[in-house]
Amino acid sequence: MPEYRKKDFPTDKIRRFLEPGPIVLVSSAWRAKTNIMTMGWHLVMGFEPALIGCYIWDANHSFQMIRKSGECVINIPTSDMIETVIGIGNTTGAEIDKFAEFGLTAEPAETVGAPLIKECYANFECKVRDAGALDRYGMFVLEVTKAHAATSPKYPKTVHYRGDGVFMVSGRNVSYRDKFKPQNL
Amino acid sequence: MPEYRKKDFPTDKIRRFLEPGPIVLVSSAWRAKTNIMTMGWHLVMGFEPALIGCYIWDANHSFQMIRKSGECVINIPTSDMIETVIGIGNTTGAEIDKFAEFGLTAEPAETVGAPLIKECYANFECKVRDAGALDRYGMFVLEVTKAHAATSPKYPKTVHYRGDGVFMVSGRNVSYRDKFKPQNL
Repeated sequence: MPEYRKKDFPTDKIRRFLEPGPIVLVSSAWRAKTNIMTMGWHLVMGFEPALIGCYIWDANHSFQMIRKSGECVINIPTSDMIETVIGIGNTTGAEIDKFAEFGLTAEPAETVGAPLIKECYANFECKVRDAGALDRYGMFVLEVTKAHAATSPKYPKTVHYRGDGVFMVSGRNVSYRDKFKPQNL
Repeated sequence: MPEYRKKDFPTDKIRRFLEPGPIVLVSSAWRAKTNIMTMGWHLVMGFEPALIGCYIWDANHSFQMIRKSGECVINIPTSDMIETVIGIGNTTGAEIDKFAEFGLTAEPAETVGAPLIKECYANFECKVRDAGALDRYGMFVLEVTKAHAATSPKYPKTVHYRGDGVFMVSGRNVSYRDKFKPQNL
């Protein structure tokens, strides 16, 4: 067991340790315009239906597009797209067309009006299931209505944001399936 | 830019790609008993105050302990603790004392009654800020009232659950601070 020396740590910096889920790109469409945002604040909330909770700042240009259309696509970029991920995070859809600006391909989705980002490893079409109950927290509850994922590699090399411009790239995978109780999922 | 071949993917398996935030251990206390659970469904919701959202299944023994006490501690285990993380996930606090069973040290917290797990890299003391507004989703909103973290290494080697007993171990860190707009955090 490790034994660490510790000191007080600022509570407003704990995302460095807590956040590292994969950074995703969220695409949306509203009134013939599309947009893409970079997002790192999300969690899984259920399997069937597949629910994802995410926090979107209401000042973000995507916030109203997702709210009004009631739809979006969560796209999983791989680590070779990290500069694109940063570029998308640095700009606003109020000023530019992000698909054109970053050379990304918008593909039609099957169940939503928002486009898939072709270059991403996977694409999850989502409908907003609840934007009201969680309003005071800026949370959306999304239901994945259709998912697309690459067949190879089995696990993509993803990027995970730590705050302050530092990213963690996903490492090796290890299986403990034989030690796991199935009900633990 | 990568170009992937894709196929339909079951929506109930997308956690493989979306979830990989660090697996955490949540410690709680209620009426002179303590407990620990393994948790992977959480997101950052704000900095000031530091808010964390998490999903806890109501059948989990920790659910009522956290609800009744209104407190818990989020502890960050490192990859050398992976077998302990699995053991804690495989057992229930209704039957065993997890601190004793897994040889972990309970240290008193400063702002909550729940104990810190000494062997973990970091410990975030939390008060339940909202268990009601998000009730229908099994979501808790936690406010971090005190945080403790190791001084070295700067970034811990964390484990990230992919479902089905497979874990991803965090990889290298890369800084893009010079390319990042400060307001993107």
